Amino acid sequence: MAREIRLKERPQGHLKADNFEVAEVSLPPLGEGDILVRNIWMSVDPYMRLVLTGQEGFVPQKQPGDVMDGAAIGIVERSSDPALPAGTAVASAYGWRTHFVAKADTLSILPNSDAPLNWYLSALGLTGITAFLGIEKVLQPRQGETVLISGASGAVGSIACQLAKLRGARVLATCSSEQKARWLRDKVGVDATMDYRQEQLDDFIAREAPEGLDCYFDNVGGEMLDRTLNCMKAYGRIGLCGAISQYESRDYRSGPANFFAAIEKSLTMRGFNAFLLTPEENAEAVNWLAGRADRDEIIIFEKIFQGLEQAPVAFAGLFGGGYEGKVVIKL
Amino acid sequence: MAREIRLKERPQGHLKADNFEVAEVSLPPLGEGDILVRNIWMSVDPYMRLVLTGQEGFVPQKQPGDVMDGAAIGIVERSSDPALPAGTAVASAYGWRTHFVAKADTLSILPNSDAPLNWYLSALGLTGITAFLGIEKVLQPRQGETVLISGASGAVGSIACQLAKLRGARVLATCSSEQKARWLRDKVGVDATMDYRQEQLDDFIAREAPEGLDCYFDNVGGEMLDRTLNCMKAYGRIGLCGAISQYESRDYRSGPANFFAAIEKSLTMRGFNAFLLTPEENAEAVNWLAGRADRDEIIIFEKIFQGLEQAPVAFAGLFGGGYEGKVVIKL
Repeated sequence: MAREIRLKERPQGHLKADNFEVAEVSLPPLGEGDILVRNIWMSVDPYMRLVLTGQEGFVPQKQPGDVMDGAAIGIVERSSDPALPAGTAVASAYGWRTHFVAKADTLSILPNSDAPLNWYLSALGLTGITAFLGIEKVLQPRQGETVLISGASGAVGSIACQLAKLRGARVLATCSSEQKARWLRDKVGVDATMDYRQEQLDDFIAREAPEGLDCYFDNVGGEMLDRTLNCMKAYGRIGLCGAISQYESRDYRSGPANFFAAIEKSLTMRGFNAFLLTPEENAEAVNWLAGRADRDEIIIFEKIFQGLEQAPVAFAGLFGGGYEGKVVIKL
Repeated sequence: MAREIRLKERPQGHLKADNFEVAEVSLPPLGEGDILVRNIWMSVDPYMRLVLTGQEGFVPQKQPGDVMDGAAIGIVERSSDPALPAGTAVASAYGWRTHFVAKADTLSILPNSDAPLNWYLSALGLTGITAFLGIEKVLQPRQGETVLISGASGAVGSIACQLAKLRGARVLATCSSEQKARWLRDKVGVDATMDYRQEQLDDFIAREAPEGLDCYFDNVGGEMLDRTLNCMKAYGRIGLCGAISQYESRDYRSGPANFFAAIEKSLTMRGFNAFLLTPEENAEAVNWLAGRADRDEIIIFEKIFQGLEQAPVAFAGLFGGGYEGKVVIKL
């Protein structure tokens, strides 16, 4: 028997752990080309909230009874494909399940490396790749430029802060508590922090970057994006990564009230997401990140929850203040 | 005596010619370094509407009694500066006045060239430079790419269409009447047109570019921008030039309802305006445009109104359907 997490009912407003339920399922017998995988690590990511809004977007909407899918790392238990013998570590997108049966071509074999397997959900997975795209491909901050990163204590944010520092930028970070702010300064190494529950962005920027911002890495959207438009230098660059502050609102898709500032200041706003990458682009990003991690140039912060049942709890927490680093579930 | 156009009262909603009035003024005697200029051409541009909204933006707000400023071409009549003798053709930003007195360093001497002076308000002025920025610096469409240009029959639009064609792009154009659509196809040389009062963008794009758009040159903002976000290919580029459809609404600054599509499709939205250019960048653009115009690679379309008093009429018309090409006032 396998267990899986299903949507019980679509959340209205703030998501709660009991919008989900655990179900037991019998796995089908293995057919030609089938692989039985036992998951050992599962990912919990902000974008997953978007499959529960009822509004079509780039992720198909889940219905009650559907299993939450997403990235997971597992070990092949039984296989009918000699290319994937039992014991092989694989990544899949089948999400919150203890075990599953799938075709070999929907699984990817993890590289033979010293990296802990869970890193393939964090720094070497979607999270790290997203931070890499935002800093290395989109914003490309230069030595001495000032970069603001919102949601900086989160999974993508905490890696983005480090990548921007590695390029020699001055990194300003926003987060939701004084504890996270201290962590960002002491552990992640950012230059200045703002707890958005205590301080207004305008005041923070007036103090820390009175000449304005060169770059903004936006993880939160909403009012923070809107206010940041006022704080950009002419020709500033904004990387649009996510809008977590909006994912629980009725309308997460709409643009900032002060959008016209983009014309006035000749700003570039560039959205990005890792789902559009080709396998080659994906491999380039993972190799780049693995090199940095090997040389200890990136510190990987993870918040580990134990057990399948914790996935909904961990998930709900993302929208109730979040964590320090990347949330992963250990099975 | 000189005459000038003053704001009588700030328009509520749709701007009307009688929101302005003509006033006679005595010119001051010439002091040290002063120049007396007689204007011969004046510009009327959509962005001027933004000085009448009552909302601060990148242009200072006008109060009743203020003269409308903007680009104009004049001839020096009397001068106390030997570098600017009588008869010199100069450009200024003093706007809708028959004559004015100004310091020499606020005037720029026009290049010695065969180009008609009015071209320095159209193809070789703000209009042409803006189209150049959008096509050559921001969107940079490649051979065979599909570019949508809204407000295509307007001043910037009609040049942008030609510049995109010169790069080998397929150009789709939107406008506000069947007459303008025919003009765009027959005179400007675009590949396909849509009269937005008769057809929905989705239908037009489904017919003319079912695979989606590579680039969008946005002159109109509002609903057209919003719908275009649905029609972009992944990694598409949007140049944000203006939002003329919104300038008469209470809130011209807010972003499109479907802004989140930028993240989903990894779109780049880049605002631009010519006011931020350095003198060197400005000269580069003018030289580039002058070369194209000399070789007859750009056709310059102008709608000429006669007499200072026509400026408010011409201006109001911009927001009531617009014109074919660039509006200039001949004094």
